[in-house]
Parts: sequence; C-alpha cells; structure tokens
Amino acid sequence: MDIAAKLTLNCDVTRHVLVSFLKHEIQRFGFHKAVLGLSGGVDSSLSCFLAAEALGPENVLAVLMPYRTSSHESTEHALQVVNTTRVSHKRVDITPMVEPYLELDPHMSDVRRGNVMARMRMIVLYDQSMLWEGLVVGTSNKTELLLGYGTLFGDMASAVNPLGDLYKTQVRQLARAVGIPESIVQKAPSADLWAGQTDEGELGFTYADVDQLLYFLVDERFTAAEAVAAGFDAKFVATVARRLRTFQFKRSLPIIAKVSRRDVGHDFLYPRDWGT
Amino acid sequence: MDIAAKLTLNCDVTRHVLVSFLKHEIQRFGFHKAVLGLSGGVDSSLSCFLAAEALGPENVLAVLMPYRTSSHESTEHALQVVNTTRVSHKRVDITPMVEPYLELDPHMSDVRRGNVMARMRMIVLYDQSMLWEGLVVGTSNKTELLLGYGTLFGDMASAVNPLGDLYKTQVRQLARAVGIPESIVQKAPSADLWAGQTDEGELGFTYADVDQLLYFLVDERFTAAEAVAAGFDAKFVATVARRLRTFQFKRSLPIIAKVSRRDVGHDFLYPRDWGT
Repeated sequence: MDIAAKLTLNCDVTRHVLVSFLKHEIQRFGFHKAVLGLSGGVDSSLSCFLAAEALGPENVLAVLMPYRTSSHESTEHALQVVNTTRVSHKRVDITPMVEPYLELDPHMSDVRRGNVMARMRMIVLYDQSMLWEGLVVGTSNKTELLLGYGTLFGDMASAVNPLGDLYKTQVRQLARAVGIPESIVQKAPSADLWAGQTDEGELGFTYADVDQLLYFLVDERFTAAEAVAAGFDAKFVATVARRLRTFQFKRSLPIIAKVSRRDVGHDFLYPRDWGT
Repeated sequence: MDIAAKLTLNCDVTRHVLVSFLKHEIQRFGFHKAVLGLSGGVDSSLSCFLAAEALGPENVLAVLMPYRTSSHESTEHALQVVNTTRVSHKRVDITPMVEPYLELDPHMSDVRRGNVMARMRMIVLYDQSMLWEGLVVGTSNKTELLLGYGTLFGDMASAVNPLGDLYKTQVRQLARAVGIPESIVQKAPSADLWAGQTDEGELGFTYADVDQLLYFLVDERFTAAEAVAAGFDAKFVATVARRLRTFQFKRSLPIIAKVSRRDVGHDFLYPRDWGT
C-alpha cells in the first residue's frame, strides 16, 4: 500500500477549487474583502496567498499580532508573505492586552496562557474585520481540527476556511506549488507561544505519521483495530482515536436545551444562505 | 387567537427539564462543575439558579466581569444572586485588558467596543473554566439567538446553554418561578456597555412584541405574509425576517472548503458523545 500517494494532492486542481471557494463563498455573504491573521507559519501564509489570488491583494488585510515573546523570524516570514502577495497589512501587538490578565495568576499554565493569546488575536482580527468590512479567512488545517490542536474561539474561529480539509502534509505541498518560500514551508511548525515550542514536540508524534493514520481513520473509515492491522502502532492509534473523540466539542456548536417545537441547533437549522 | 398564552411556560416542568439537562449533559462530558458569567441581568441570574440547583452551589462558579463603565446596580444584583444561591464567585475587572486596545482607535464605534468587551469576558470565563474544571454554561436566550443580538465568540460562546430555547418573556416567567427578585426581573434589559443603553432602545422594538412575532415565524413556521395577515405590522415583520437571515452566520460553524472524501463540517459529523 503506497500510503504517501494517498495524501498527494493534485495541486493545480486543489488551488483552483480553493481560490473559487474563497471568491464565491465570500461573495455569497455579500462581501468582497477578507481579513486574516498572518503568523508567518505555512498555514496562514497559504491562506494569505489563496485569498490574494481569489479577491485581489488590495482586498485582503493581513494582521500581524505578535506577543512580546514571539520570534523575530515569525515576523520576518510574515512580512515576506506580505511583500510577495502585495496584500495590505497591519501590526497589532497583543502584549498590552494580554499582560494584565496573565499578571493576575503567576502560576498560569502554558496551555492557559496560549489560549488567552490565541483568543486575544481573535478579538483583534474580528474587530479589524468590521473596520475593513471583510470576512475572516481561517487558517486551521484538517490535522489540527481533527486532533483538536487549536484554541476554540481563538485560532479556530473564522467565517470561511480554505484549509480545513487539507492535512498538514498537504498544506505543505500546496504551499510549495503556490510559491511560498522553502524557509517557511520547511521550518518546524509552532504556535510560537514560548521559545523552543514545536507542534510535534507537544503532540508527541510527527505530522507525517499522524496524517497517514488520520487518513485511514477518517477518510477511509478504518476502525482502530483495522488501523493496527494495517501496520500502525497500537498505542499511537489509541492516542489519536482518543483525541478525535475528546475534542469533538471544539467542532460543535453549544448544546441548547430543547423545550419548544423548534429551537436553534435542532430544528431551526439552515445553510448559511437560507432564504436568499 | 390568544397570543400571550402561546408563550406561557409550564414553569414547573420547564424548570425540571432544564435542571436535568444541565446535570446530565455536563456529566456526559465527564464533568460535574460549571462556570458562568454573571452580569446581574435576568438571563445570567436564571442560568445561575438552574446550575446551582442542578450541580449544587459548591460546584458552580459565577464570574463577575465588570468594565469601568458598568453600573453599580449590575454588580449589586449579581452579588444578590450569589448570596441567594450560595454559589462560589470571583470578580475579574476587564478594564485593564480592554483599554489598551480601545486606545488604539479613539473613533471606535459602540458596537466594536461592545464586541471587544463581550469577547474579553469570554477569554476570562473560558480561562476560569479550565482552572475550575467546569463547563461554561450559556446565558443567551432564544430571542437573542434568533435576532443575532449578541457577540459571536463572546456572550454567545458556551458549552451547554439551558436558556437557548426560551424567549425573553419566558425567561422572565421562569425567573420569577425560581425566586429571582423582582428588581432583577423587571429592570430594562441592557448589555450595560454604556450608560442608558437598553436592548429595546437599540433593537427598536420590545421583547414582548418581538417574542410573539418570532413565535409565529419560527415555531409556527408562518411566512412573512402570513404573519402580516395575522395582524403584525408589515415593516416590523420585514425587519425581523431580515435579522433572522442576516445573522444566521452567528448560529453556524465556519464554512470549510471540501476537497476530500470526508471533511469536518460535512461528512465528519457526530453528536458530541460520539464513540462513547
């Protein structure tokens, strides 16, 4: 079984589909502009390239939102993407908003601090989207969404997300295809919340490995037992299967108690363009 | 047609259903504690009463999150609810986190400022929920959800929401039934973002009127024309029908571009307790 081939994108077709998606979905909301948080990582860089191609760079605002411990390399990479795509950009340092809260609890864990920062960026991004009159374009990929490796109402918040059905390894393929520099594609993925943090270090496995497993569990609907029979390590399969279940709530709307004939979330459900 | 009767709750049954909902849904997530933002308004006061009854007051944390312009009356009412229910409480002033951002743009509109405050409260609430190891209980009622009168990723964010299927007029009925003081039930509903702000002043109609109209449009599936024929003002119906459509996005998850066999939001969809 050639596993890697399963994850190989037809980059021309995918690029065309995602550019059309952004253009048409944003138009159907009645908008023609977009806003996104640009960290300088490969995901947000790819979203930025796709949005610029879909809407024209003059209609895209990239917001750089460093925290005081963010690496300079991240900012340099983000500015490189701004220069190449020629999108508009704005820089808002989140440090002055974050610090007063972190100071209330000197024992705050890294996860809690990271969530506060990710959500503070959401506040800035959604506020800037109102000023810019553009929709927020998402940057969460399929691997992150399935593993629940992101902050609910933080980096997971968006109106339209072109990357949500691409595994991390596929994001890299498409990033190369659209011309994103190797220095951005090859660096170790990181939420950049503290020095030396890397996604793969935190998760305990590589994207290359987990993308293959997720492909079988999700796209091919393998059971855990079938994945083990196919050659995946049993403990690894158990860990990933547990994450899939545990973080389902991050992919769901709030659960509302139903007491009437029709309620939001159960019977009052429409596609976004309902009634138009 | 006795319209008011349509919105009259059986308070005993509803109270029992909502208390059971909170208890069992929170348990099914693997938790036994809850956190909520308590403003001193009738909605959050009712959520607090129901949560205390469902989980025991010692398992409920009410977080008071005033801004520098919040009214003293709001805090007094919130403390009154804390004292009556005997839940735990904590006070976190959001002013030091909000001000650095508002200062960046002296021309920021009231709506933008209100969104920043509502989302800052979400940050505090979700962070406190991690520390307290409890789920966030929602306080948005059905009227607000249907009119889109709330901040996405702000006051609309929660894990479980006992009030989401109760119209505002029904929230008041149940609030009286559980013993919430008349001073809280009768005061003019307000997001308390600036002095003199009231929901009904901003919306341009009363909750008593709009709840009746929404009941027919949503619960009874009347068309706009049928609602007018039933006696509602045509302009009022058009305004409310437009709000229902316009704010559907606040009741939806981010739209993800589908490129694979199965993706989050289209084919990879499970109830929250999937797989358990």
